[in-house]
Amino acid sequence: MTRRAVGFGYPGGYHAGMTRGAELICTGTELLIGRTVNTHVQRLALALEPLGLELTRETSVPDHRETIAEVLREARTRSEILFITGGLGPTNDDVTREAVADALGRSLRRDPESLERIRHRCLRLGQAFTESRQRQADVVDGAVVLPNPVGAAPGERIELEDGRVWFLLPGPPREFEAILETQVLPWLAVHRPGQPRLRRLWMVCGLGESDVIEILKQAGFEPGPLELAWCAAPGALEVRLTTGPEHADWLERAAQVVRAALGPHVYAEERLDLVEVVARQLRSRGATLAVAESCTGGWLAARLTTYPGSSEWFRGGIVAYANEVKIQQLGVPEPLLATHGAVSEAVALAMARGVRERLGATIGVGITGIAGPTGGTPEKPVGLVWWAVADETGAAAVSRRFPGDRELVRRWAAQFALDHVRRRLLGLPPVA
Amino acid sequence: MTRRAVGFGYPGGYHAGMTRGAELICTGTELLIGRTVNTHVQRLALALEPLGLELTRETSVPDHRETIAEVLREARTRSEILFITGGLGPTNDDVTREAVADALGRSLRRDPESLERIRHRCLRLGQAFTESRQRQADVVDGAVVLPNPVGAAPGERIELEDGRVWFLLPGPPREFEAILETQVLPWLAVHRPGQPRLRRLWMVCGLGESDVIEILKQAGFEPGPLELAWCAAPGALEVRLTTGPEHADWLERAAQVVRAALGPHVYAEERLDLVEVVARQLRSRGATLAVAESCTGGWLAARLTTYPGSSEWFRGGIVAYANEVKIQQLGVPEPLLATHGAVSEAVALAMARGVRERLGATIGVGITGIAGPTGGTPEKPVGLVWWAVADETGAAAVSRRFPGDRELVRRWAAQFALDHVRRRLLGLPPVA
Repeated sequence: MTRRAVGFGYPGGYHAGMTRGAELICTGTELLIGRTVNTHVQRLALALEPLGLELTRETSVPDHRETIAEVLREARTRSEILFITGGLGPTNDDVTREAVADALGRSLRRDPESLERIRHRCLRLGQAFTESRQRQADVVDGAVVLPNPVGAAPGERIELEDGRVWFLLPGPPREFEAILETQVLPWLAVHRPGQPRLRRLWMVCGLGESDVIEILKQAGFEPGPLELAWCAAPGALEVRLTTGPEHADWLERAAQVVRAALGPHVYAEERLDLVEVVARQLRSRGATLAVAESCTGGWLAARLTTYPGSSEWFRGGIVAYANEVKIQQLGVPEPLLATHGAVSEAVALAMARGVRERLGATIGVGITGIAGPTGGTPEKPVGLVWWAVADETGAAAVSRRFPGDRELVRRWAAQFALDHVRRRLLGLPPVA
Repeated sequence: MTRRAVGFGYPGGYHAGMTRGAELICTGTELLIGRTVNTHVQRLALALEPLGLELTRETSVPDHRETIAEVLREARTRSEILFITGGLGPTNDDVTREAVADALGRSLRRDPESLERIRHRCLRLGQAFTESRQRQADVVDGAVVLPNPVGAAPGERIELEDGRVWFLLPGPPREFEAILETQVLPWLAVHRPGQPRLRRLWMVCGLGESDVIEILKQAGFEPGPLELAWCAAPGALEVRLTTGPEHADWLERAAQVVRAALGPHVYAEERLDLVEVVARQLRSRGATLAVAESCTGGWLAARLTTYPGSSEWFRGGIVAYANEVKIQQLGVPEPLLATHGAVSEAVALAMARGVRERLGATIGVGITGIAGPTGGTPEKPVGLVWWAVADETGAAAVSRRFPGDRELVRRWAAQFALDHVRRRLLGLPPVA
């Protein structure tokens, strides 16, 4: 995914001073040896945004007491709000507590209430109440303890003499989030509110960044004091306008222009997965969906069933990798495969109709393509995908050649097929 | 995923001095506003490991020239090898080139060869050869230009007076990787080799960290000068021993103990996805696979088809979400569903047999369970999954209650079902 501020006339990029800054320090050797992708940065940034707080720096360091203390000392005078994650567990490489105490020149104390919670937890889980587990009750002198509703090690809030505040949070995402949501964000909202920012956003399918620029230019869109930015994922583009409360009227006018210009390309005006939007459409009509997948190999079905309650509107799917499966399970006529090949309009249509009928769904989807890296020909290159949507009124197929590697082609294809369903339910033609 | 060094007797954690340090600075506002997960850290760490180089710090900062220059000045004397990614594109928030020049007190020059490559690229893609695109040919004075085989902006290698080296690499992962692999790693291997480290690893399915500790203890495993560490993902655990070349004999002896103790729980002795292992087994026997999924909703099929060439051994799958689909598409007898319920041994077996027969595969897999968060009962709680494997000799089913949320349950279930296939192909019983 990329995010860029748009060119025309507007400086774009980072806006120091518009929002209040917070900094994140992640401790954990696992983050630096390539075996864990750091998701805390994203989780924290999204949680801070509504408070008008922005991350201005993130640093990851190994589980090494001196290194952590050094990084904390560097951040001490730089940042007003500091989040420190990881290294609060029971093992001997969990040294963040000690490093924080070192950096602040404070000592650790064993918190009786935390100790009691840990003892109860050990009892409940049948674990020995060992010294290493008891260590998790050690907190920095002067810290406010933030009880951990889903794990052993508590978080801590340390208010420094100069008004700065440090938060220590456990590394496991579930525990990190639980303490963040119940005890950090509510406190920040009251005690360290950021500058409020007004935002409007549109989730778009079927258009790229340059398409959107062109459309907005032609619609006479004028950013003025608004920040126009976007995030692109395969098949989905978030278009976003942000500004201060003093420009509320300008934002409102611009939003009307953007909304009208992007029209049915917009599938949501909040951050939603296209699956959630289609699920709402299906639910409100009492309609059901079934999917027949070749190149996407089950990826669309897996995405559809990510959401609890999908059984209400999702009948099931057929992953027809072998041609015999297309013939026998979906009723694709053998001559069609012989004449047109598996990646063709005719086969996509037959798959959509077949899965709809055989699985008893209101709407059927068929996807067939060449995900690559091999299997392409001059007429049917890697990235070419045909997809079709069938309902009680008929069926329609479209094709597109998607860029990128195997995984990207699969993701694009699933997203475009899903957008085709959304458009068909709205009575709109698909994007080709 | 978590990674921890094991307790018994060994200090664990970060080992300064064992490997040579490199540092990564990622520039890009998108990394700090929550819309992009930073994958460069992981990619780079895994690429550096075989060279005996280790990341000792990672910092992410927004696209802000002064901030980037400040971070670079801090890193100037700290790190021997510095990687700087992002901000080399054409838009006006791409300021990394300028920030690097600022930090080093050098100027930028427009590289004629890069300019020529960009001109050709614009011609080929039908893009205007604008000044903003030409800016991408600006490089820091004294830098060696690293041509970009897949994008416009070249990378740069800057060797500083004191022997330190800085690499500038584009942010888009494809471009980052292309330059890293073709021009950075080969150079480092020759000019900045790290301390060699010996490693042995075992990929394990069906055991947790505490199980492995217990098994190794009972087998008389003695870590001595070896670092024992692991990384856990749903259903897969990487167990790893690392040491210096002086302890090669100890490592060899310990590896034999570990290998014997973990036995058939080990599915690979290198970093492999279980799918790749099962694919090799199937290919070598000329066998094929078909999967019937309920709670995993297509996730297993999507994983199997991630790999090019899976059409050789994967026939297809049926995502049987609705009970009618289980009955009609898989031939699960209706009375079986009525008597035992959809999440039961009998239904898992019928699904595995049905999909094997109907899709004409050597081996059939059936998975049915309660992924949650709702739908659980006291007898059939959330997380309970039954899965079965059928082949020409018969079928077997196992159940397990998996921890975690909906996505985790789905991932665990797919992994355990796949491990069941691996074991059946080896003539071993499944892990229950």
